[in-house]
Amino acid sequence: MIAIFDSGYGGLTVLKPILELLPQYDYLYLGDNAKAPYGIHSPETVTEFSQKAVDYMKGRGAKLIIFACNTASATALSKIKDDKIIGVIEPSALEASKVTKNGRIGVVATKTTINSAAYEKALKRQNKSLQIYTQACPLLVPFIEEGWHTKPEAISILKKYLMPLKNANIDTLILGCTHYPIMLKSFKKIMGRKVKIVTSGEITAKYLEEFLKANPELEKSLGKNKTRTYFTTDNPEEFKRFTENNLGMKIKTPTKINL
Amino acid sequence: MIAIFDSGYGGLTVLKPILELLPQYDYLYLGDNAKAPYGIHSPETVTEFSQKAVDYMKGRGAKLIIFACNTASATALSKIKDDKIIGVIEPSALEASKVTKNGRIGVVATKTTINSAAYEKALKRQNKSLQIYTQACPLLVPFIEEGWHTKPEAISILKKYLMPLKNANIDTLILGCTHYPIMLKSFKKIMGRKVKIVTSGEITAKYLEEFLKANPELEKSLGKNKTRTYFTTDNPEEFKRFTENNLGMKIKTPTKINL
Repeated sequence: MIAIFDSGYGGLTVLKPILELLPQYDYLYLGDNAKAPYGIHSPETVTEFSQKAVDYMKGRGAKLIIFACNTASATALSKIKDDKIIGVIEPSALEASKVTKNGRIGVVATKTTINSAAYEKALKRQNKSLQIYTQACPLLVPFIEEGWHTKPEAISILKKYLMPLKNANIDTLILGCTHYPIMLKSFKKIMGRKVKIVTSGEITAKYLEEFLKANPELEKSLGKNKTRTYFTTDNPEEFKRFTENNLGMKIKTPTKINL
Repeated sequence: MIAIFDSGYGGLTVLKPILELLPQYDYLYLGDNAKAPYGIHSPETVTEFSQKAVDYMKGRGAKLIIFACNTASATALSKIKDDKIIGVIEPSALEASKVTKNGRIGVVATKTTINSAAYEKALKRQNKSLQIYTQACPLLVPFIEEGWHTKPEAISILKKYLMPLKNANIDTLILGCTHYPIMLKSFKKIMGRKVKIVTSGEITAKYLEEFLKANPELEKSLGKNKTRTYFTTDNPEEFKRFTENNLGMKIKTPTKINL
């Protein structure tokens, strides 16, 4: 079984394209909603929470784990060290380094992700000469979770966040938080047509496909009964409602667990 | 020792007037920052987190506990049932019921507090004929924690939240979240001079003073060495910095604990 882990709902924007591209496998989704959002907490706390989640998912039989959460990928992944865990940062950095023409790449993400410098490191590993411009956008997640992300105040805040990146003349922008694609239209409108926007979902799905091709033994060992099981550490009904309303996915009510 | 408990920093707006009014006692402050903010989580989750905090504080020798967090007071207090725990809702409701002249009272708070109807129940216990108007303001805490609460977008959002209360012709407004006093000026400006604003801090301090007078044996048992000890479940340096910058309180670096 393949497990997708996120601090809350955001990882569903990664799960969705994975289910579309690779529907044949058994999947488990775990949202640690009781402690969400991770992006405002310290790296040590995020690592501790992520480790508990990893232990749980392995206990449930996960053979491969996707950290759909950028904050967990940025902070916990290097600490937990496990070659059966894939983060979202490496695939996005690889894609952005291919896409850019002028070598100027912007990254927007949570505070903890930006402070970790994980994207800068991943991008520099691809190409040392890349120029990276980063911007933490801490108010976007609350606006999105509130469903107020199309209100003029949200757009005005987004403009404030993006202005330094526009001024830096970037040609590629990584949305380094799984919530941000929900505001994709506004990002595009503010950045303009010439800036290519990289989101984690489809890219991680393709990365996973390649990973499984490169690891045939692991691939063989995966269950292929198309089961989908959802777990959350907070209210299961709220989880189902958010998912169906905001991502257009019909899901079974998750099971509530404690971590 | 008296313990003050909050999901994070907000409870410091309650601790501060308590230390000013009753400086002689030993105090412990516990901020569960690793799981903050509580106000977006379910009542069950908040109760579970609060119970762990209570167990910890008692283990540290707390003889009396103040739930400075409105969300915890609104949801966990009735479940934990302990006459050595004082919440912030009862004192604020009592004060508001005394202050109002037209019997129309507004309450602003987090989603979880509003959904719990704890303020409505507490106000109705004081006076059944009161008319209560409530409004959840979920974006204020993120704006305040970001230090962006004086920006035009924050004021515009606040106006949207307060408009229904203004239209309801309330004469008293309870700020039912310990973060909100940090935006007190904006609340006053939008609501106008005729609306009396009730905040938890000073009221809870006075309530505590009365409580100790009414419970002389408990009062006698309290340590009176003016010790102040701080605990947080997230980054201690961040905690110290926020406290000193936003509340003008000099504190020792807190001890990091796991709950």
